[in-house]
Amino acid sequence: MAATLCVRLLRDPARNFIRAYRHYRIKDISANNCKPGDKVNVKGWVKSVRKMKGNLFVDVNDGSDANNFQLVVNKEKQFDTAYGSSIEAFGVLVASPKNQLELHVDNLNEIGKCPLAEGFPFYPKKSYPPEYVRNHLHLRSRVSSMCSTFRLRHEATRAFNEYLVQGGFVQIHTPVLTSNDCEGAGEAFLVKPSNEQLLKSMVKDGVPLEHGYFDRATFLTVSGQLHLEAMSHGLDKVYTFGPTFRAENCKSNIHLSEFYMLELEEAFMDSLEELADRVEDLVKQVSKCLLERSATDLSIVRKLTTDDPLEKAFEWMEKPFPRMNYDEAIRILKANQSKLKSSVSVEEGINKEQELFLVEHCQSPVFICYWPKEIKSFYMRENKQNARLVDALDLLVPHVGELVGGSVREDSYDTLLLKIPTTDALQWYLDLRKFGSVTTAGFGLGFERYLSWLLNVHNIKDVIPFPRWAHNCVM
Amino acid sequence: MAATLCVRLLRDPARNFIRAYRHYRIKDISANNCKPGDKVNVKGWVKSVRKMKGNLFVDVNDGSDANNFQLVVNKEKQFDTAYGSSIEAFGVLVASPKNQLELHVDNLNEIGKCPLAEGFPFYPKKSYPPEYVRNHLHLRSRVSSMCSTFRLRHEATRAFNEYLVQGGFVQIHTPVLTSNDCEGAGEAFLVKPSNEQLLKSMVKDGVPLEHGYFDRATFLTVSGQLHLEAMSHGLDKVYTFGPTFRAENCKSNIHLSEFYMLELEEAFMDSLEELADRVEDLVKQVSKCLLERSATDLSIVRKLTTDDPLEKAFEWMEKPFPRMNYDEAIRILKANQSKLKSSVSVEEGINKEQELFLVEHCQSPVFICYWPKEIKSFYMRENKQNARLVDALDLLVPHVGELVGGSVREDSYDTLLLKIPTTDALQWYLDLRKFGSVTTAGFGLGFERYLSWLLNVHNIKDVIPFPRWAHNCVM
Repeated sequence: MAATLCVRLLRDPARNFIRAYRHYRIKDISANNCKPGDKVNVKGWVKSVRKMKGNLFVDVNDGSDANNFQLVVNKEKQFDTAYGSSIEAFGVLVASPKNQLELHVDNLNEIGKCPLAEGFPFYPKKSYPPEYVRNHLHLRSRVSSMCSTFRLRHEATRAFNEYLVQGGFVQIHTPVLTSNDCEGAGEAFLVKPSNEQLLKSMVKDGVPLEHGYFDRATFLTVSGQLHLEAMSHGLDKVYTFGPTFRAENCKSNIHLSEFYMLELEEAFMDSLEELADRVEDLVKQVSKCLLERSATDLSIVRKLTTDDPLEKAFEWMEKPFPRMNYDEAIRILKANQSKLKSSVSVEEGINKEQELFLVEHCQSPVFICYWPKEIKSFYMRENKQNARLVDALDLLVPHVGELVGGSVREDSYDTLLLKIPTTDALQWYLDLRKFGSVTTAGFGLGFERYLSWLLNVHNIKDVIPFPRWAHNCVM
Repeated sequence: MAATLCVRLLRDPARNFIRAYRHYRIKDISANNCKPGDKVNVKGWVKSVRKMKGNLFVDVNDGSDANNFQLVVNKEKQFDTAYGSSIEAFGVLVASPKNQLELHVDNLNEIGKCPLAEGFPFYPKKSYPPEYVRNHLHLRSRVSSMCSTFRLRHEATRAFNEYLVQGGFVQIHTPVLTSNDCEGAGEAFLVKPSNEQLLKSMVKDGVPLEHGYFDRATFLTVSGQLHLEAMSHGLDKVYTFGPTFRAENCKSNIHLSEFYMLELEEAFMDSLEELADRVEDLVKQVSKCLLERSATDLSIVRKLTTDDPLEKAFEWMEKPFPRMNYDEAIRILKANQSKLKSSVSVEEGINKEQELFLVEHCQSPVFICYWPKEIKSFYMRENKQNARLVDALDLLVPHVGELVGGSVREDSYDTLLLKIPTTDALQWYLDLRKFGSVTTAGFGLGFERYLSWLLNVHNIKDVIPFPRWAHNCVM
C-alpha cells in the first residue's frame, strides 16, 4: 500500500511543486535552523492581516512559538486571507529590514476560513477579559496569550519532572479512585457507574446499590500522599504529579474542583530543616529553568497584568526563604492586628489574609514551621522538643498564600495508633510502621497556584486548560 | 532556628562520628561514584542475611537500584538484623573477590524491625504468585521484582515524555471530569459530591439532585481525544498522558477500571501513512530507550515468566511493522478459519483471538489500516478513494492484541454534522471545523498494555501500582 501511495504522489504535478519547499514549524525557523534563500512551507492560523501599497502582510502562528511569523504577499499575486483562517504558505525566506526572517510568498492556500460573523468569539486587535475568554474554553487555544500559558504549564511540568529524575525520584501513578476518605473531611466526590443495569447485576448482598461496583464507597482522591508513603517504604524517593479533587462550593480564585498537585515523599528523612531545603531548592530550580527556557512566553502572559520587568519579579530566587516558627508568625500577626480585618488567634491557624500579610512582611516567600498539633493532620510527627507541636511546614508565597504543605510523618506505630482516625480502612497504613518502619517526610505543592504566582495570573482557572469548579464543567 | 540546630549538632559526639561517613544511595555506589576505602553510610531494607564462619552477610536495597548491595559484618561486632528490617549501616568500602564494592561495617542501626510472625506476608527466599502479591498492595514495594516493575513504569513514562518534547509536542492536562459521554457508550463512571447537604444546598430548579454540583451529569473521562483536538486547533502538536476510566464488569487480564493512556494529536497531518510512521517511531524509540537505560530491571521482571534473552525478545525493533488493510486482514483470517475458535466476518471487526492470530501470522507487531466506517467512531475521516472505509488504524502487538487505535479526523463541518451523535453537547466540537478548520490526526496508546507486552507480565494489574477493577478498590 505504501508503494502505491508513493507512485501516486510522483505522478501528481502539484505534489512535485510542493516538494520543492521544506516544511518548518515557526519555532524552528526562528531558532535559526533556516537561512535567507531557503524555500520553505509554513502552516498555521492567521493572527493579523495588513495591506500596505497593495501588498499583503500576514502574521501567522502554528502554536510552536510565542512570536508570530510574517508572510509578505506581493500585490501581483491574487492570494487573500483573513484573521482566524488556517493557511498553508510556500515561499522564499528573506531577511527583513530589522534582520528577521520573513517569507516572500509564492503560493498560499487557505485551508479553513474563519467566518467571524457566524459566532467566532474573538475579533482581531481586541483584547478580552479573562472571564470572557474562559466562556469559550474550546477556542482558548486560538488566543495567543492562552497558548503562551499552556506552553508555560507544559514547560513547568517538564522542569518538575527533570528536577525529580535528577534527584533519583521514581514517579508513581497514585490512583484517582480510592476507598480512603480520611483526609477529605466530607469534601470528596463519590463515584458509581452511569449504567444502572450494570450496578444491579453486580451488587452483592448487604452492599448499598450505589456502592455495588467496587463493593464499597469509592471516592476521587484528595491526595496521593498515603499511597506514596506505602511506595516510599521500599522505593525511598518517590513522587506523584496528577489531578486531585475537592467537592467544595467555592468561588475563590485559588480553588478548583479538579487541580494538579506535585507530591513527593522521601524515606530516611527525619528533619523539618531538610524538608524545607528540598522544597526551597525545588521551587527555585524549576523557576530558574522556566525563566531560562520560556522568557518570551512569561513576558507575554505577565504583561497582561503587570509592568514589572521579569528580573525584578524574580528577585526572590536569589535570596534564602526566611523560616519562621508558627509561634513567631502568630506574634507578628498579633502585633499587626490593627492592619488586619480578621482576628488572630493561636488556635485558629493562619487564614489567607494573614498568609499574604506575612509574605508582605517578609518581602519574600516564607516558611512557617512547627505547627500546633490540634490544627494539623494525624500523620504528622510530634516534635521531640515540644509535644504541643508537630514537625510540619507551610510555604507561603505572594499572590496565593499557601503553596506547599508538608511534614515529617509519624513513624511510631504506638503513637500513630492513638491518633489515626480509623483503624479499619487504614490498617494498611499502620502496617507500614509495623514492618521495617522508617521515618519519611514529604509535601504537596499546588501546581495551579504555583503557575498563578509565577505568571501573575489572578485566577487559577486561567492556568489550567479545562477548569472545573462549582456549577461549571463545560465540555 | 537553622543556626541553633547547627550548634546542637556540633556538640553531639554521636553526630560527629556519623559525619565522618558520607551517605550514598546504592545506585550511586554501583554507578562507581565511590571507590575502595571510602567511608560510606547506606540506608535500606534487608533482603537477606547469611551467616558464614560467624560473619554476617547482609544484602540491602534502598529502592534506587535493581541490584542489592552487600554488607559484611565481622563476627567480633555484636550487630544483628533480619530480613525485612530497615537499617542504617556505616562502614568502609572494600572490593570483593569478584571486584564488586561491598561495605565492611563499623556500625549498624536497626531502624525498624520486621516481625514476620505478626503478619508480614512475604518470607525470605520464597516466591509468590502475582495474585498473592496483589492481595498486599501496600507492601508490594517490599518485593524486589515489583520495585523493578515500578522503576520500569517510571522510565517508560519518562521516555514517552522525552520523545514527545523532542518532537515539539506540548503536554496538555486534559480533564478527568467531563460532561461529554459520547465515547463511553454507557461505560462511564458518574460523579457527585459525597456530602448530601452540600448537594441540597447547591442544586438548581429543574436539575436532578445528584447532578446538582455541576448542574449536569458529570463523568470520569474515557478519553482525552476530543479535548486534545480543541487544543490542537491552535497549538498544533499536543499530547496527554494520564488516567482514563471504564465502568465495565470485566475480569480479563487486559482491562482495568482506571488505566493510563498516552494520546496525541497533530494538526496539518492528513494521511494515515504519516500517522502510522509516527506510531511506529514512537513505540520503537521508547522501547530502545528502556532497553538502554533499564536492562537489569527488564531482565529481572521478564525472567519471572520467560527464558527468552532480551535481544531475541526485542528483535522486532529492527524491522518495519507490516501494514495491512482491514480487508486483507479479514481475508487472511477467513483463510485460517479452521484454526480459530471464533467465526470471522467483515462486519464484526476483529476480536482478541483474531488480533493475536494476525500478530502470530506476521511474526511482528502489525498495523491494520482503513476500517469499515460502520464499526468505527463518528470522528474518523471517510476515505477519499473508498467511501465504505475510514482512515483509521489499529496497531496489534503480541500478548495483548490492540495496543494503539488512531485515525485521521473528519475535518468537514458538513460531513461531521451528519455523523455526530449529538449536536447539543458537541456543538463545541463542530465549532472546531467551522472556524479555521484543519485536518488533524492522532491516536491513543494503552500504557499498561504496552508495559505488559514489553515486560512479559501476563496481567496488566501487575504493572500499575494500585490496580482498580470490578469489585476491587483497596486503599
